[in-house]
Amino acid sequence: MTSRTCLSVILAAGEGTRMKSALPKVLHPIARLPIVAHVAKAVHSAGGSDIALVVGRGADAVRDAVKSVVSNVTVHEQKERLGTAHAVLAARDAIARGYDDILVVFGDTPLIETAALDQARARLADGADVVVMGFRPANPAGYGRLVEKNGKLIAIREDKDASESEKKIGFCNGGLMALRGAGALQLLDKVTNANAKGEYYLTDVVEIGNAMGKSVVAIEIAVDSVIGINTRVELAEAEAIWQTRRRRAMMLAGVSIQAPETVFFAHDTLVEADVSLEPNIVFGQGVSIASGAVIHSFSYLEGARIGPKAEVGPFARLRPGADLAEKAKVGNFVEVKNAKIGMGAKVGHLTYLGDATVGAGTNIGAGTITCNYDGYNKALTEIGAGTFIGSNTSLVAPLSVGDNAYVASGSVITQNVPADALAFGRAHQVVKEGRAVELRARYAAQKNAKKAE
Amino acid sequence: MTSRTCLSVILAAGEGTRMKSALPKVLHPIARLPIVAHVAKAVHSAGGSDIALVVGRGADAVRDAVKSVVSNVTVHEQKERLGTAHAVLAARDAIARGYDDILVVFGDTPLIETAALDQARARLADGADVVVMGFRPANPAGYGRLVEKNGKLIAIREDKDASESEKKIGFCNGGLMALRGAGALQLLDKVTNANAKGEYYLTDVVEIGNAMGKSVVAIEIAVDSVIGINTRVELAEAEAIWQTRRRRAMMLAGVSIQAPETVFFAHDTLVEADVSLEPNIVFGQGVSIASGAVIHSFSYLEGARIGPKAEVGPFARLRPGADLAEKAKVGNFVEVKNAKIGMGAKVGHLTYLGDATVGAGTNIGAGTITCNYDGYNKALTEIGAGTFIGSNTSLVAPLSVGDNAYVASGSVITQNVPADALAFGRAHQVVKEGRAVELRARYAAQKNAKKAE
Amino acid sequence: MTSRTCLSVILAAGEGTRMKSALPKVLHPIARLPIVAHVAKAVHSAGGSDIALVVGRGADAVRDAVKSVVSNVTVHEQKERLGTAHAVLAARDAIARGYDDILVVFGDTPLIETAALDQARARLADGADVVVMGFRPANPAGYGRLVEKNGKLIAIREDKDASESEKKIGFCNGGLMALRGAGALQLLDKVTNANAKGEYYLTDVVEIGNAMGKSVVAIEIAVDSVIGINTRVELAEAEAIWQTRRRRAMMLAGVSIQAPETVFFAHDTLVEADVSLEPNIVFGQGVSIASGAVIHSFSYLEGARIGPKAEVGPFARLRPGADLAEKAKVGNFVEVKNAKIGMGAKVGHLTYLGDATVGAGTNIGAGTITCNYDGYNKALTEIGAGTFIGSNTSLVAPLSVGDNAYVASGSVITQNVPADALAFGRAHQVVKEGRAVELRARYAAQKNAKKAE
Repeated sequence: MTSRTCLSVILAAGEGTRMKSALPKVLHPIARLPIVAHVAKAVHSAGGSDIALVVGRGADAVRDAVKSVVSNVTVHEQKERLGTAHAVLAARDAIARGYDDILVVFGDTPLIETAALDQARARLADGADVVVMGFRPANPAGYGRLVEKNGKLIAIREDKDASESEKKIGFCNGGLMALRGAGALQLLDKVTNANAKGEYYLTDVVEIGNAMGKSVVAIEIAVDSVIGINTRVELAEAEAIWQTRRRRAMMLAGVSIQAPETVFFAHDTLVEADVSLEPNIVFGQGVSIASGAVIHSFSYLEGARIGPKAEVGPFARLRPGADLAEKAKVGNFVEVKNAKIGMGAKVGHLTYLGDATVGAGTNIGAGTITCNYDGYNKALTEIGAGTFIGSNTSLVAPLSVGDNAYVASGSVITQNVPADALAFGRAHQVVKEGRAVELRARYAAQKNAKKAE
Repeated sequence: MTSRTCLSVILAAGEGTRMKSALPKVLHPIARLPIVAHVAKAVHSAGGSDIALVVGRGADAVRDAVKSVVSNVTVHEQKERLGTAHAVLAARDAIARGYDDILVVFGDTPLIETAALDQARARLADGADVVVMGFRPANPAGYGRLVEKNGKLIAIREDKDASESEKKIGFCNGGLMALRGAGALQLLDKVTNANAKGEYYLTDVVEIGNAMGKSVVAIEIAVDSVIGINTRVELAEAEAIWQTRRRRAMMLAGVSIQAPETVFFAHDTLVEADVSLEPNIVFGQGVSIASGAVIHSFSYLEGARIGPKAEVGPFARLRPGADLAEKAKVGNFVEVKNAKIGMGAKVGHLTYLGDATVGAGTNIGAGTITCNYDGYNKALTEIGAGTFIGSNTSLVAPLSVGDNAYVASGSVITQNVPADALAFGRAHQVVKEGRAVELRARYAAQKNAKKAE
Repeated sequence: MTSRTCLSVILAAGEGTRMKSALPKVLHPIARLPIVAHVAKAVHSAGGSDIALVVGRGADAVRDAVKSVVSNVTVHEQKERLGTAHAVLAARDAIARGYDDILVVFGDTPLIETAALDQARARLADGADVVVMGFRPANPAGYGRLVEKNGKLIAIREDKDASESEKKIGFCNGGLMALRGAGALQLLDKVTNANAKGEYYLTDVVEIGNAMGKSVVAIEIAVDSVIGINTRVELAEAEAIWQTRRRRAMMLAGVSIQAPETVFFAHDTLVEADVSLEPNIVFGQGVSIASGAVIHSFSYLEGARIGPKAEVGPFARLRPGADLAEKAKVGNFVEVKNAKIGMGAKVGHLTYLGDATVGAGTNIGAGTITCNYDGYNKALTEIGAGTFIGSNTSLVAPLSVGDNAYVASGSVITQNVPADALAFGRAHQVVKEGRAVELRARYAAQKNAKKAE
């Protein structure tokens, strides 16, 4: 990475009215991370870790979203919406600090890739003063065309102003730009609003730069990188591209995904090689899965650590703090929250384990419930190693069950069980011979009586 | 909307043998509504609410499906299958009633859009006598071509009869038609079966109309609108188009759908703006969701009302009569049937709530089961506000638990619990120190004994 | 089918390093069957049931995978990796046994279809000595071109060696081949490694055969058939093609699948006509579903037999040995393992039935758990016909509950219940009026005390 200093100006003041949302546009999530935080991560990876965030509505929430991924952020309010150059100049104080490079990006283009930004900065390092990031869409109609001559970018021509020959240019303006820090403000200050809409356009720096004898160039970046989000349809499309990229990268790195289009990662999901993912898995934030683990279908994982060769699902719900050791098994209709499951321990069916520890090799029977909440406080359930918890048991926390203990099925356990002890707590069974026949007759009579009313 | 009267003739007598089904073809569902009912809804919206339904096999069930969405339906049996004109004439009595407009549509084209029918009727209002609905497929080969001259439709040429120049026409016959009511029967009665197959073709009215000096025109409608269903592959394709349309409309209206291709709406699903839908949600009929609600993955909703800012799933099963007030939460592995959940109440895990009411702010612990069925009758469980139901509790209905009551974990509750009372019903716990060791030894011995046998 | 004898040489010695897996490449699954077993099934169906398997790493596991579908397999180790002809000659002993036909296929092309192999063998029967299987990709660049003259294949030209006119040939080498058994070894032995890479190429037999005056021809097979698997991305792509084929075939045979792209079959899933499959169903191996059954969304079925008109899910987990009779119902959050459910019996909600039998018409209440494992042994639960098991019941196996018996809700049942008897086993309920108020005050005080610490 270069030693040049870099400021990233993120323009995030757009209203986003077409989202039809109470939430500011750039805070809508992709892969469970706000759009603007994706942009911040990308500029951060490209070395532009000082961020000048230009905001309008919802400023605090937008700032918090960016700060959740990059710490060094200054916030600049764009009070009026007078064009992109005007927006960049809202960050005048930050630009004036004197950076080598300035990256100008949009808060609503979450798919921008670090490689594209690296490439733009490399051109600045090579002597360019203005680098415009262009792309080649399938159909260029409607986009501003990048008019090049001898390797220089001489103009950005809006579609409606383009000549017939210019309309044939397939290389289009992606909006993103890199500017040499020295002279950036001079360039920006020369932008006027002498145009039909009366706006200050950032694209004008191309013409101004050329007139000043500066080096203005264009680089080509991937089409996806410049996708901006204006509606929830576009949000879903960007999510799909993000997921497709990530699934492909995972598979090439050695993760088996039977039906990739049905697995939804979060931005920070970590999966090691030789993990196998069945169809229909949803990841919330903060999940890591070690090699050899198998995640079966219809599992929803969030804030969970899955150890090597562990087995999860189908129908498993792992909530934050679920921590499965090697070869642990969590089966169907099981919810685990803030609980450590020891090596080789099994939690097979219809169980809620919350605020608990389970020792190695322990078997938790079907229908076991940790009663971790008494309506006022949460309390812990500690279960030792080699222990057997019979089916349909209620474990009323705070509670400790020792190593190698045995709890009989159907028990309500309210007091600690020592190691090696047997515990039970259930009523005696009563059988009334023939009574089901009477009962049936009585119920039937009641039913008939009701009908007769 | 026009004040002109309109009859819709729905041709639904096709055998549908390629469906390989005991169910008549037009009764197969799309978005949980029979194909033919989709057609009925479309003609109804276009003002053609008097329906003449031409049927063959399964007449009663087909009629009922149509009546479920439009009330004014007459049924006409087509006894022999002698062509489309013959089928329309099965509804002679209805046509003879004297409508301004006649819409002729097929019972197996569920994607027909109201806008297309509106457009056809507008042409009748403007003076046309026959309006043929055409479309432009990607590849016209095999379709009848619409031969136009001076804005008039002069012929429908079957592919096999078309000249080389006619084969280049991309505008094709979609089969649907609108006829001026006055003179419609005259036109139809002139159709003969003097052709290779000996059938009466509705398309012949184009030639006949022109010969009679009538105004015959074609309009272009969307390709999807004319898709007919003949196999279950086509049924699935039509379902996919329907779902794609609906998801897109929802998103543009302000609904967030992370992975639209994994959410399956029913025909009548209502979702307000700023609702968030995670991947993998299935809707049965009769669901409405208010603004601000979040539906997590792997949820299956049917006949449920979700209040504002409520939270559902993942792994929630809402059945008919589930009614969640504002900010209520229904969590994982929870089934709710015919039950009202009060404002801010929580039903978090592994619970079955059937035939119940839950007051505001009440907390239902994990593993709670309403025992609403005694084998003969269903009974109600009424739970007050601010109440705490401990985990793994059985609530044996009919039962009432008062406001601010407290039921201890693991209880079987068979009698009413007054407000502010504490209730429990569970056996005392017994602990036998060291007994697990003996038990283990005994079991191991048994196992060895069995092996030795 | 022909009476000619046939040997199939399956080349499965490739390293598969791009899979980044501890598992040999050809053992990765498609539709839950190893890739190489798909190939074995295809050659078996084409009459090539004697298999010569050429292996490298993981030989035993690869052999076992093939033997799981075809019994007559000899294993031949290719010690060095010296080219495809060298690989075929590793099976010299098998070829020397004297077969009429030799099929040479790759262990990593799981989508090869029997029809293609049949076609190749038919050409041998018609007199060809060498049959090369070619395909027509969308873009032939990079593939070896099949150069034909007068119906004979005269050369396979590598892309880099092709002339401009040869580059325009769209017919490409798929790698698979059929050889007349008589003379096959002679041909193969003439292949040399006099080329840039020093490898023995199987494709050289085309030139050699022509030089020897033999009949060398090419046939065209489907593009999908020759897809080889080298990465997990390609594995997922092949899985998708397999699933798409199978779903389409199922639908054309009369199975309704609302959203085919969300249903994942195993290689051996059997579904009869007029079965209805909702979105999001995953099949493990060994499932059969009889006509009229409905499988609701979010169901995961494995080793299960579903009877006519049975209803499963949503959220059902059927494990091996689940056997549902006609009209049986298994509802949400229910797991069934090694259990027979009788005609019309209902297991509606939140239940685990393991190692059990349930008689006809019996109703199993919500939250019922069969406690089939005591930590040492598995035991049976036998429930008769017409029986009612109340909600939240624990059935501690071994246990028998007779016909028409009645078990009250919330019971722990440890002893047999005779026919017609009523059984219960639960503690008496205690109610302490006003105590919830005191409890709440005490808890609140504790909480405050903790905070104050």
